[in-house]
Amino acid sequence: MFVSRRTVTIEWGDCDTAGIVFYPRFFAMFDWSTATLFANALGMRKPELLRRYGIAGIPMVDTRAKFHVPASYGDEVVIESRVEKFGRSSFDVYHRLLKGEAIGAECWETRVWAGRDADDPTRLRGVPTPMM
Amino acid sequence: MFVSRRTVTIEWGDCDTAGIVFYPRFFAMFDWSTATLFANALGMRKPELLRRYGIAGIPMVDTRAKFHVPASYGDEVVIESRVEKFGRSSFDVYHRLLKGEAIGAECWETRVWAGRDADDPTRLRGVPTPMM
Amino acid sequence: MFVSRRTVTIEWGDCDTAGIVFYPRFFAMFDWSTATLFANALGMRKPELLRRYGIAGIPMVDTRAKFHVPASYGDEVVIESRVEKFGRSSFDVYHRLLKGEAIGAECWETRVWAGRDADDPTRLRGVPTPMM
Amino acid sequence: MFVSRRTVTIEWGDCDTAGIVFYPRFFAMFDWSTATLFANALGMRKPELLRRYGIAGIPMVDTRAKFHVPASYGDEVVIESRVEKFGRSSFDVYHRLLKGEAIGAECWETRVWAGRDADDPTRLRGVPTPMM
Repeated sequence: MFVSRRTVTIEWGDCDTAGIVFYPRFFAMFDWSTATLFANALGMRKPELLRRYGIAGIPMVDTRAKFHVPASYGDEVVIESRVEKFGRSSFDVYHRLLKGEAIGAECWETRVWAGRDADDPTRLRGVPTPMM
Repeated sequence: MFVSRRTVTIEWGDCDTAGIVFYPRFFAMFDWSTATLFANALGMRKPELLRRYGIAGIPMVDTRAKFHVPASYGDEVVIESRVEKFGRSSFDVYHRLLKGEAIGAECWETRVWAGRDADDPTRLRGVPTPMM
Repeated sequence: MFVSRRTVTIEWGDCDTAGIVFYPRFFAMFDWSTATLFANALGMRKPELLRRYGIAGIPMVDTRAKFHVPASYGDEVVIESRVEKFGRSSFDVYHRLLKGEAIGAECWETRVWAGRDADDPTRLRGVPTPMM
Repeated sequence: MFVSRRTVTIEWGDCDTAGIVFYPRFFAMFDWSTATLFANALGMRKPELLRRYGIAGIPMVDTRAKFHVPASYGDEVVIESRVEKFGRSSFDVYHRLLKGEAIGAECWETRVWAGRDADDPTRLRGVPTPMM
């Protein structure tokens, strides 16, 4: 299974008063790791991917994260990401955040391959993934 | 079981290029809803709560969210929050985000009641919750 | 001159390791204060405003802020906002953030009333403000 | 004058419904560029710098940015940063964000070299910069 890796430096603005990453920021990092995973697998960046497949995005429908070891500003962490499953119009991604040798966090995602609704372009709806 | 409610207006800066809330922002909203839940239940705001109980924070260890209906800037949503369980040094919270009559999103949290480690104040560790 | 006021509660996620608001979050607050100012003055929320005037947004071109008194999570601050000037396709806004009696911060903005470029819809360009 | 450069990839979560960077995110990028500037100049990351000099942070007191060319997700931009002036307890930084050959944005900062107040550790106050 294709695995994508990227290094992320934790920034001052990612951290809270307790001195550790404010966890919603981890989800933002995982979000871009999923974009990077597709960019690396398909050889095109996200804007090109959306144009090429005629979709509006890959919105999240279900995500879970476990935080094992905190990280703080200045830390360099590695996020490893892979697609676990492709469904008809959705897919699952798994991320593992490494802080040195330790698994700092894990995240599971189910996202929709989503186009604009033909009848109401302000709405998104699942369309068949090209991988099925 | 004590339920806390607050109304949140979705802002332009909460939304992404698809025109819907960038989901990490929902986690930030849920985070403050948990703070508000304790504030409402205990009659003290978060800074006073941390001082009173001598803790550094209530860091997240495990959280999951399901997103059922998207929301966009200008929407007013209601977040209902309640503690589901108190453990020895952790507790579970459940949030339900209402967009009108619809359940727009749900979130489950397990957090730690965390103090500074006596030997290494840069580290956090679970301490007994006062509710047990 | 029309003045719009809103109360903002500083959240845990707005603050950094020094325990005070991470200043980019103040800009996010000012951004929504400008949206609220128009909503209050014109009687329509931002999505309706964009549709009604056929614009894609009111992007920032020049902004400055001075931070006089820090704020922290749990603080309730008031942001007062007013349009200072309407130009042909741009306008200036001034925000004053009050923490109790003190002026905690000030912000000046110059924004563009921006539509999609007819030749290239991925680009934004200034269009005449309806107020001129 | 020492100039620090770093490359930043604009992420999906940095952009708003108009499809361009939500400008408060630029300030977050500039904030970490200032941290990187000191890290590169002094050979130590921000947490070590704060410990070494006994300060709590380098809070912003005055910042201005001009946005010339929008950027969007997938764009790689370069931020060049340099200290313009060291005062007794404050210093000025200038950032230039390059999108290809174009200057996409500029930012000016005045920050304080801030320690904890001896009488009230919850307050920050300027202390002499080591560079003077």
